[in-house]
Amino acid sequence: MSAPAVISLLTDFGDQDTYAGQMRGVITGLNPDVQVIDLTHHIPPQDIVRGAITWADALDAFPPGTIHVGVVDPGVGTSRRAVAAEIGPWRFVAPDNGLLTAIQVRWPTHVVVELNREEWRRKPTSATFHGRDLFSPVAAHWSRGVSISELGSIRETPLIEVPLPTVAVTDVTAAGEILWPDRFGNLITSITTADLPAAIPAEQFRVAVAGNAITGISRCYGDQPPGSLLALWGSSGRLELAITNGSANAQPNLRRGTPVEVRWPMP
Amino acid sequence: MSAPAVISLLTDFGDQDTYAGQMRGVITGLNPDVQVIDLTHHIPPQDIVRGAITWADALDAFPPGTIHVGVVDPGVGTSRRAVAAEIGPWRFVAPDNGLLTAIQVRWPTHVVVELNREEWRRKPTSATFHGRDLFSPVAAHWSRGVSISELGSIRETPLIEVPLPTVAVTDVTAAGEILWPDRFGNLITSITTADLPAAIPAEQFRVAVAGNAITGISRCYGDQPPGSLLALWGSSGRLELAITNGSANAQPNLRRGTPVEVRWPMP
Amino acid sequence: MSAPAVISLLTDFGDQDTYAGQMRGVITGLNPDVQVIDLTHHIPPQDIVRGAITWADALDAFPPGTIHVGVVDPGVGTSRRAVAAEIGPWRFVAPDNGLLTAIQVRWPTHVVVELNREEWRRKPTSATFHGRDLFSPVAAHWSRGVSISELGSIRETPLIEVPLPTVAVTDVTAAGEILWPDRFGNLITSITTADLPAAIPAEQFRVAVAGNAITGISRCYGDQPPGSLLALWGSSGRLELAITNGSANAQPNLRRGTPVEVRWPMP
Repeated sequence: MSAPAVISLLTDFGDQDTYAGQMRGVITGLNPDVQVIDLTHHIPPQDIVRGAITWADALDAFPPGTIHVGVVDPGVGTSRRAVAAEIGPWRFVAPDNGLLTAIQVRWPTHVVVELNREEWRRKPTSATFHGRDLFSPVAAHWSRGVSISELGSIRETPLIEVPLPTVAVTDVTAAGEILWPDRFGNLITSITTADLPAAIPAEQFRVAVAGNAITGISRCYGDQPPGSLLALWGSSGRLELAITNGSANAQPNLRRGTPVEVRWPMP
Repeated sequence: MSAPAVISLLTDFGDQDTYAGQMRGVITGLNPDVQVIDLTHHIPPQDIVRGAITWADALDAFPPGTIHVGVVDPGVGTSRRAVAAEIGPWRFVAPDNGLLTAIQVRWPTHVVVELNREEWRRKPTSATFHGRDLFSPVAAHWSRGVSISELGSIRETPLIEVPLPTVAVTDVTAAGEILWPDRFGNLITSITTADLPAAIPAEQFRVAVAGNAITGISRCYGDQPPGSLLALWGSSGRLELAITNGSANAQPNLRRGTPVEVRWPMP
Repeated sequence: MSAPAVISLLTDFGDQDTYAGQMRGVITGLNPDVQVIDLTHHIPPQDIVRGAITWADALDAFPPGTIHVGVVDPGVGTSRRAVAAEIGPWRFVAPDNGLLTAIQVRWPTHVVVELNREEWRRKPTSATFHGRDLFSPVAAHWSRGVSISELGSIRETPLIEVPLPTVAVTDVTAAGEILWPDRFGNLITSITTADLPAAIPAEQFRVAVAGNAITGISRCYGDQPPGSLLALWGSSGRLELAITNGSANAQPNLRRGTPVEVRWPMP
């Protein structure tokens, strides 16, 4: 017996309603052997930028071939398109609204099709819940062996992009911003390991944020005395600001968009 | 190999505690091959009416034969009965406290049994957590092929009902009420597609709610300019009130129980 | 075909981020046939004592052989150790920081190994997310048949312990404290069925808490008139304080740490 297919779900549906459960019901009805994994249903409502970055940051944990379904979809039912795509070692199903932007920046796009075939839709198809009526059945059929070229027409034009926070890098600085806090109050930033020179020892970096000067990039949350503001590499390769045994997010001057600058000595 | 059985869970257990996880542990211990799907665990504590309607609205997404377990059970351990039932194309396990009311209104009840056999209970059986000790093991045994007549004695008398919000329909009006908001701040109402004449074009309906007059029933959330209060058909066939790029639930005069009237021209 | 292995997850990761989803991605990539159950991801951040007791209280619902993964891990990346253990009829993977304390008190520890082998780690291994990079892959490999002695070196010294709330028992009293509320506002206490004499009828116990005197231990939440403060045995064998159709947790003088005393007549 071959390994069961894996489908992951990333949405802004939350957990109060049954939207995520209905998606699972549809998927399981079409492919009872698939493994469905909730990546998260707590993207803030309609926050495509946060969905895009959060999605890209989580992919490395999944096996090749995983079908990742993303639904942050304020334009559901309008003329916005929907797509399936093979990008990097994974497969994706999503609205064409920018949700795939950060993923396409990091991994090569092999093929994209537009989901314009009625046959893979749930009937009747609502105009308000394509997560259940379009994206879930497409993912389920794909997981059963339907090929991507059967799912829709090859898309030649680029997908819609959302503007992502940028990092300005010089020989001795990288300037980015705070993105958002995680559950622990750690502040995720736009700066990644790729933005800093690998040859510089961690203790030689200086991080400046909202008047705070941090010396060195720590290895883990417990590396500094309780109460210290520290910088460290988070588990997805992003620079994080954290307070040992506390919450960096509780600092009133550290917010989404607050500039963060890392400086290092000329090698 | 036949398809694995599907069990869905709808409860008011939330996610802070391990109650839902314990239900899954019991089910998996008795039938390791079953697919368990969380429909939602966030029914407000002991809100049987909301549980009943939410449950009925989500069922269409599930394959025939799915065993739906519902636990909103303030009377656990008292003399309230517990039942298993075949209703429409699905199977149900629930307390006899009204939680099945909306489902029985919409689909035909084929058979109901009272769960009065000790052999299907987890031992020892607590008086405070029948979700784990009664409903979960019954569902697991049922999913393994135990027949409904083995689960308990045929129940001849009707199940207990809770009063559901009604809709008053005339030749030119349907009068209902706001039920509750979803995650996005859309307000779900008691009015369904079945309450309105199918022959009238969507733009000829007028919706009145708390002094607001809405012209036409929109197709999707993006159909109106940002900030507009609009009415549209939600994904379970209920009329919803929404604000494009906003939250109808943030309007202070739109609350659970607020009257909503739809009016249309005489055909 | 033998039954699929079961892995349960208890963490303080919450659900806003993708941490729990990434753990599932790693596990499924290594063992696609495993059943993964979320016990809870809502242990308050870094609250090892609450994690320890919550974990021990939920285990009885799971089949023998279940691999329970616990991650409440403020010391991730520091010199704290990580272990796999066979305790009672189950298997465990956790940091060595006290999270297994309550479990070791209740069930016999058969064998403990230190997770010091590079081969079972995800590469590269972060210093900030051992839930994904160490505990999940170890659990997945263990579930595929790797033996515990292959997972690491036998640990001879005792595990680190956290101080647990104690119960002082005399011939006629048991004195403990309130631990925390559950979702329903019921207050879980440190007093368990094992602390009280089994021969005394329930109605002969007297419970004193913050100036309230409760006569008898009720069987279930519906046993008293609405609004009454009652004491009863919760589903994990702990004494609970509850208010019928209300919330004991809404009482301002009932808090974590508030003393609770049970008194009974000399047999």
